[in-house]
Order: sequence, then C-alpha cells, then structure tokens
Amino acid sequence: FSSQAPIRATLFPGDGIGPEIADSVKQVFKAADVPIEWEEHFVGDEIDPRTQSFLTWESLESVRRNGVGLKGPMATPIGKGHRSLNLTLRKELNLYANVRPCHSLPGYKTRYDDVNLITIRENTEGEYSGLEHQVVRGVVESLKIITRQASLRVAEYAFHYAKTHGRKRVSAIHKANIMQKTDGLFLKCCREVAEKYPEIKYEEVVIDNCCMMLVKNPSLFDVLVMPNLYGDIISDLCAGLIGGLGLTPSCNIGEGGIALAEAVHGSAPDIAGKNLANPTALLLSAVSMLRHLELHNKADQIQDAIVSTISEGKCRTADLGGKSKTTEFTRTIIDHL
Amino acid sequence: FSSQAPIRATLFPGDGIGPEIADSVKQVFKAADVPIEWEEHFVGDEIDPRTQSFLTWESLESVRRNGVGLKGPMATPIGKGHRSLNLTLRKELNLYANVRPCHSLPGYKTRYDDVNLITIRENTEGEYSGLEHQVVRGVVESLKIITRQASLRVAEYAFHYAKTHGRKRVSAIHKANIMQKTDGLFLKCCREVAEKYPEIKYEEVVIDNCCMMLVKNPSLFDVLVMPNLYGDIISDLCAGLIGGLGLTPSCNIGEGGIALAEAVHGSAPDIAGKNLANPTALLLSAVSMLRHLELHNKADQIQDAIVSTISEGKCRTADLGGKSKTTEFTRTIIDHL
Ligand SMILES: CC(C)[C@H](C(=O)O)[C@@H](O)C(=O)O
Ligand SMILES: CC(C)[C@H](C(=O)O)[C@@H](O)C(=O)O
Repeated sequence: FSSQAPIRATLFPGDGIGPEIADSVKQVFKAADVPIEWEEHFVGDEIDPRTQSFLTWESLESVRRNGVGLKGPMATPIGKGHRSLNLTLRKELNLYANVRPCHSLPGYKTRYDDVNLITIRENTEGEYSGLEHQVVRGVVESLKIITRQASLRVAEYAFHYAKTHGRKRVSAIHKANIMQKTDGLFLKCCREVAEKYPEIKYEEVVIDNCCMMLVKNPSLFDVLVMPNLYGDIISDLCAGLIGGLGLTPSCNIGEGGIALAEAVHGSAPDIAGKNLANPTALLLSAVSMLRHLELHNKADQIQDAIVSTISEGKCRTADLGGKSKTTEFTRTIIDHL
Repeated sequence: FSSQAPIRATLFPGDGIGPEIADSVKQVFKAADVPIEWEEHFVGDEIDPRTQSFLTWESLESVRRNGVGLKGPMATPIGKGHRSLNLTLRKELNLYANVRPCHSLPGYKTRYDDVNLITIRENTEGEYSGLEHQVVRGVVESLKIITRQASLRVAEYAFHYAKTHGRKRVSAIHKANIMQKTDGLFLKCCREVAEKYPEIKYEEVVIDNCCMMLVKNPSLFDVLVMPNLYGDIISDLCAGLIGGLGLTPSCNIGEGGIALAEAVHGSAPDIAGKNLANPTALLLSAVSMLRHLELHNKADQIQDAIVSTISEGKCRTADLGGKSKTTEFTRTIIDHL
C-alpha cells in the first residue's frame, strides 16, 4: 500500500470524549499502516447559516469530496435557532441508511452469547420528518412521512447488503396492522425488492413481537430493515444485548456511495479529558469504514486486535468493569496488531 | 363471602384457544370459591353496525354495566368493512390505560431473574389515531395525536398506581428530542402530575435508551408510563424478559373505573381445541381483575397456586417446555389452592 497515494477521509473527532477516542483511532491506524490520511474538522462555536447548525459547511464539503468519513460523538448544544448536529449530517449528506452490525464480542460476557445481526435503519424520514403542529390548545400532532422512494432505496440497500455479506434472511419490521398506509407502503416496497433477490429469505415481523423475540432469542434474526424510529429503538436494544453502545459500530450510507461511520454513544462530558473513555465503538466504526473501502485485510487485522484485547480481559476501560486508561487500552490493541 | 351477593363480571372467552383457557379460569375461580358470577359474551359472526365490528353492542354494554371483565384472545377476522376487535374495545369503552405488571416467575428460568416492573401505556391516541393520508402518489403520512387530556389522565393513573402499590419511581418514556411537540406535551403533563406526588421519584428516559437499559439491567426501572406505541413495544419487550406473553397479565382501565383484564397473547388457532394451551396469562389477568375488585385474599391464593405449579416444574404446558395438557395444568393449580 505504501507506494499508493493515501485515501483521504474526513474525521470529526466530536466533543466530550470525542478527541480522546479519535486519537486512539489515529494511533491504531498509524500502527497498522492503514493508507488513510485524515482531514480533521471540528464542531464550530458559531452557527453556520448554511447548515443552520454548529457544523460548518466546509466540514460537510469535506465528506462530500472524500466520500468517506468517521465521526465521534457530538452533543447538540442546548438553545434555540439551530439544528441537531446528527440530524444536520443525515439531512445535508442524505445519509439514507444507518447500518449497525451487532455481534457478541467473544470474551465479553453478557446474558447473550449468540448475537449476530445487522440492523438497517431508514435514516431520512418517517417519524423524524420534523413536521409537528398544534391543532388546538392541548392537541398536538406529529407527521410520520413514508415515501416510496426512500423505502425502496433502503430496502434495496438491505437486500444488497445481505447478498454481498453472505446473509440469508431479511426481516422487515413494521406496525402495518395499525399504520396501514405508512408502514403498509414500507412493506410493499420491501416486497417489491425481495422479489429481485429470490436467494434471500424475506419475512415481515411486527415491531412489538420483534422486540419480544429479540430478548428471548436474538439468533432468530439475521438482517433487519425498518423505518426510522423503529430502527432507532431496535438498534439500541440490540446494542444492549451485547453490552451497550460503547461496543457497537455504526455506519451511515448516503447517496452516491458516501459512507460516514460513527460511534453512536454519547459524548460523556463527565469523563471527558480524563483518559477514561472506551474507544471501542469508534474503532469498530473505523473498521466498518475500512470495509466500505474494501480494505478488508487492514479491517480484519484491527478488528482481531480489538477483540483479542477485550477478550483477554487484562486491559479494559472502566465502562467494561476494568481500570485501564484510554491510552493503555489503545497501546494494548497496538501490541496485538 | 358466600353470604354476600356475587359480583357480576363479563367474560369474553375469545376465539382460538380462548374458550379452553377461559374454562381454566372458571374452574380455578370455582375451586377457590371466588364470589364472581360470569356473564359470558362471544365474538359474533355478524358485524354489529353499532360497533362496526364482530363484537356486539350488548357485549360492550355488559362490561359497562358490570364495570369489570376478563377477555381472552380475539383474532380480528380478515376482510374489509369492520374494525379490529381489540381497538373497538379500547375505543368504545374508553380504556385509556393498559397496565402490564411484569415479574420474573420464581422457578421459570429466563436470562433475567430480577424483573419487577409495571408498564402503563396510554391506550387511546398517539400513533393509533387511525388518521392516515396519501399526500401524493408514493408519499403517505400518519398522524400521531397527543392531547393534554389523555396525557394527564394516564400520568395521573401511573402516579396513583405507584403510590397505592408501594412503588418508588415513575419513568416517563419518550422521544421528545425528535418529537418535541407531541412527546414534549406528554412529558409536560407527566411533570405536572409528578409535582403532586413528591414522594414518588420522577425521571424521563428516551425510548431507545430505555430499551437498551431494559435488556442490560431491567432492575433499573419500577413503573414506566408512555404514549401508545412505545407502550406497545416496551410491554412486549418486558414480557420477553420473563418468558413471553403467555406468562404476563394485562389490565385495561377505562373512564368511570371500568377494568377489563385480558391475555394479550394470540389466539393460536393451530393448537385450538387440542387441550394444549397455557392458561397462565389469562389466569394472571383474572388475578389482576380480583385485585381491582380488592379481593386480595383470593387473588393471593390463586396467584400462589399458579406460581407453585410452574416453579415445581412437574406440570408444564408445551410452550414452557413441558408435556402437560391444559386440563392437567388447571387441575394441578386447583390442587395447590
Ligand atoms: C441523538 C438522536 C437524535 C439520535 C436519533 O434519535 O436518531 C440517536 O438516538 C441515534 O440513534 O443516532
Ligand atoms: C393486536 C394489536 C392491534 C395490539 C396493539 O398494537 O395494541 C397488540 O399488539 C397489543 O399490544 O394489544
């Protein structure tokens, strides 16, 4: 690789513990000789009128130009007159699918040891339309919007993902028995796409039943695809099965093949700057970015080092019941490379 | 009790396995000398124009008159021109709160042994408004309606429940960071009610985070109150923690103190009439009806007999991994009375 020009990727360290865990990624990537050159962008301290948020237009342009990026946690500052940073990213970059692989980490014990599933969440519409009204005093409404275009797009992504990742089944999660028109349209689109993939089993599962089945026996599922809010709920539930958001990667896919990987946990301001944060979720997200770039060797190498470090159990951060510092944990991963 | 006039209660055996498990309840109640006289009503085979469903107006009148009832599973027959039976009941009887206690059953092992929580679900509005439109071809919307009146009513019920049941904490579950107006109004109402109950701790938890916490450590929660769809999802998730809908009671509370207890599992047409069904959820629902009537001695007696039967492990129905018939299971409970 060293003879090739490096690939430029955008890095948003984010705030709170973001810079520390981003540092960990940079060190691990350097030690593994990953041919990536980071283009760092920070959450600004003034609202950029073009994004209506603390994220600058230049930082978005960077992702558009590079096509790949990695994002740490961003806490949306409280106050009026600006948009949530996470939602700004999704909207401006048209990040239509949020992909969250969820695998039991060998050596990190939870109540479940058989988790191996992928949630794929529609990321642009549904309950996140932002359309809300007061009808009369004391009566408010929110609009859930489902479109054929966005539903087909995410369904297509899910089936393509299943096929290219050796997965056998796609489950569409819905509540079409109640929301017959919106979730009904979502299902209709999934069915249309399913017909093009006869080798992938397709099924439909009602969201309440899905949650019950997930906590009873997560191995019943493989790839799950669903509208925005259900994806928000189920991806966090699945993260809980294997230990929480500190251990799960996430990657957002946008139009034109953009991939923005991100750690979806919070920015943990209480421990920021104290060298206590667990960089695992951001590291695994960085690994998923490498897979998107088809740098599978590097991805495997780094992932194996993370898994070995955690499963050895000698070096763990406080959130996993250990006493290690972020920098010690990072060093141990590098030693395992 | 035998000297007092019996209390009349409506019984909807429901369909599928409904009649068999309703039979079990009738036998157990008789053996325990419960002063209840059942008024049975069946799901009709013609649509009653006054209810627009297969439920007759007379059957609803019976619940209104008696103030208490017990309902088995009802499968809404497929076809157009009528309403879902479950939704008809909620709407016509104004069943505004769905209460689901969820306790680990001693002796029935799942991945969790520390579950002891109550979900209280707003049962009349939210995402279940039934208001849906096609905006243009390929673009549909559903309306989520939140009202001050229904939110205050269910919040009041939740705090009152917590206070009268020795509970310490109420958690309001929401997604007000996204649905600021609707879930925001719901939270505002909960906060108003919370102020009247200074002895009960009040907190607000975002739904995705709540689901993650529930699967990691359900003992973090006590009483949960939430809008309709979140309640649908979370109550099933919680049921999954302790073994499924076959083991969890449910009770709907309506205006004027109506209580309609129900088994929320399906009607299992595949095993109907085969003496294989597990009557536990309906029995426990019947117990919650007795508690509503303040017949606590009878309720305790029957509940203890159910728990002993299951935890002994000698007599279990097929869904719990045993080989016993419905009638054997019922007989064993009666022997334990
Ligand atoms: C922070 C919040 C707006 C966000 C969401 O609801 O999508 C988060 O929960 C997530 O899953 O990324
Ligand atoms: C059958 C269905 C309409 C119902 C609901 O969504 O409320 C069920 O899931 C429940 O929880 O009672």
